[in-house]
Amino acid sequence: MKTRVRRIFSHFHDGVDLVVFMNSVDPHIDLSFMYAAGLTDGLFEGCAVFCHPDGSADLLTSALEEETAKESGLPLTVYRTKAEREAAYRKLLRGHRKIGINFAEITHRAAEELRGYAPKATFVDASDAAMRARLVKDREEIAALRKAAQIASRALEDTLSSIRPGRKESEVAADLVYAMQERGASGASFRTIVGSGPNSAEPHYTAGPRRIRKGDLIVIDFGARYEHYCSDVTRTVVVGKATPKQRDIYETVRRAQSESMKRMRPGVKAKAVDGIARSLIDASPYKGRFIHGLGHSVGLAVHDGGGMNQASDLVLRANMVFTNEPGIYLPGFGGVRIEDDVLITTNGPKLLSTVTRDLIEL
Amino acid sequence: MKTRVRRIFSHFHDGVDLVVFMNSVDPHIDLSFMYAAGLTDGLFEGCAVFCHPDGSADLLTSALEEETAKESGLPLTVYRTKAEREAAYRKLLRGHRKIGINFAEITHRAAEELRGYAPKATFVDASDAAMRARLVKDREEIAALRKAAQIASRALEDTLSSIRPGRKESEVAADLVYAMQERGASGASFRTIVGSGPNSAEPHYTAGPRRIRKGDLIVIDFGARYEHYCSDVTRTVVVGKATPKQRDIYETVRRAQSESMKRMRPGVKAKAVDGIARSLIDASPYKGRFIHGLGHSVGLAVHDGGGMNQASDLVLRANMVFTNEPGIYLPGFGGVRIEDDVLITTNGPKLLSTVTRDLIEL
Repeated sequence: MKTRVRRIFSHFHDGVDLVVFMNSVDPHIDLSFMYAAGLTDGLFEGCAVFCHPDGSADLLTSALEEETAKESGLPLTVYRTKAEREAAYRKLLRGHRKIGINFAEITHRAAEELRGYAPKATFVDASDAAMRARLVKDREEIAALRKAAQIASRALEDTLSSIRPGRKESEVAADLVYAMQERGASGASFRTIVGSGPNSAEPHYTAGPRRIRKGDLIVIDFGARYEHYCSDVTRTVVVGKATPKQRDIYETVRRAQSESMKRMRPGVKAKAVDGIARSLIDASPYKGRFIHGLGHSVGLAVHDGGGMNQASDLVLRANMVFTNEPGIYLPGFGGVRIEDDVLITTNGPKLLSTVTRDLIEL
Repeated sequence: MKTRVRRIFSHFHDGVDLVVFMNSVDPHIDLSFMYAAGLTDGLFEGCAVFCHPDGSADLLTSALEEETAKESGLPLTVYRTKAEREAAYRKLLRGHRKIGINFAEITHRAAEELRGYAPKATFVDASDAAMRARLVKDREEIAALRKAAQIASRALEDTLSSIRPGRKESEVAADLVYAMQERGASGASFRTIVGSGPNSAEPHYTAGPRRIRKGDLIVIDFGARYEHYCSDVTRTVVVGKATPKQRDIYETVRRAQSESMKRMRPGVKAKAVDGIARSLIDASPYKGRFIHGLGHSVGLAVHDGGGMNQASDLVLRANMVFTNEPGIYLPGFGGVRIEDDVLITTNGPKLLSTVTRDLIEL
């Protein structure tokens, strides 16, 4: 994982001589810990990785996860007691003057604990460096992301036959999560959205007791977690034959996606990609009904740092992975969103998710 | 939720005049936010609740979750932009001198952000006060915990028929999560453990590709989430008829659980309850093979604060809910753990989980 650690340090220009990613109790886990240690399993509560400018790193782990920790191939310090843990932290921090920590993912308590162990050091924010490093994926990460997207895609195909009038949204969500786990996911990467009928018009709905009816638009937004990496896919289906208006909305969203996706190339501004989809929708009868950003980086977290929206100053680079997810939402009527996970390469955008983007009529 | 807020303040004796629970981006959510606001749904990224000594509270929410926020019944401040959000934080913090924040669940960045909005205030740690308040459950919390335990219990009963030779651990885990969702859980409260054969001897195993064999001990540790509240239940089953040794281990664990459970009464030290189970196991041929604490508080988090172990200084009180989960682990041979969620009342312990504690032979 030397390359990952070096990549993190490449974003510092102010003498940082150590970066520490430190976990608290689940769910307060710093995903950059997994990234820097290259771990694909385990939880590592209370553990930390100490990263050095030359790319080397030391892993501090509890005895509980010693076996899993070995998979990192990093030098290990194992603690059994609170006193051993504290002594290890003090030793690994010793002599360092300017220490980066991930302000965005470390708890305030853990940050204070580190300050206590190294009272003479200055602590600076490493969240931007970690985020920028994590934006550009390496081969192992791309393989895991591809697998996560593939699992999600196949699981939706498995589940389509269970989407019919009378079934509850929550039942379809459970089916989908089950299919993802059956296909090798460690779980869902976030809480599955199955928004049917009017619920499809709410981008942040989850899945409730509403029973599916004939004629419904259903927005299904879901993802798998595989070796800690996430996928994030949305398809909108119609129960029965689509009305002309449903089809028109769908085709508008689809066009917004395919036109904007063409521009997902190295060197293009994320804001510009969002702009293409937004202009296209705003030139349609659904002006102003695309009420969120076009996409976001996906990786160890579902929202893995950068956004592809009008507020973004990001420039796309090869080996970044972003969602592309335009939508149109008409309150009371329903909504459509189509979302794919897209790998940016020098040869253009590559889709990681593989479900058909044609309108599915069930 | 006035009683909850007052209960938090009852643990301060140093002039704290405001307590703020502030969420960052998922998964860095402060569960005490949900507790103090009394919210049973929603995510509330970037939102906060401002609690006052008289029990009143103000909720700051993004427009995205305004509808869900209304369910709290609290006075709302809704922001639409970054500037509106910052102005709202400044206004709600204004005039306060000593502000409590939850060091254990707020990110370092969020803590620094609050300091920036109220540069003259002193910030103190509210994590102990929040944890102590959350340890004692109110009626709504007990109802949600009971439902979460009931869902888990029924789901295991649904799933028993799918546990048979040839099936993978991960498939059984997926079945169980599905059954919980079907029975109304919003999801699993943590990653399901299905440890079969030698894997049953590892307390922190999850569920892998191993196929179940005749004669296996299988430790199944799982829980449901219902209205943000968690259950945490373990049963150990045998595939086929138990050997005398398997049965002896099981009965030892069961006795450790039932004897220690009798002492789960108001006024008893958590450490003493752990001691009963530990002495009983240490007096058996399995001395030293009970390698974790006897239990932990369960609530909004699976590990909701206090532990019932030898390091604990907690005294049990009425309306606390703790797991009671003794275990015996023999590397290479297998393990047994039995875990129930127990409500402490003045009339003695009440089991919230309802699966039989007799050894199940499949």
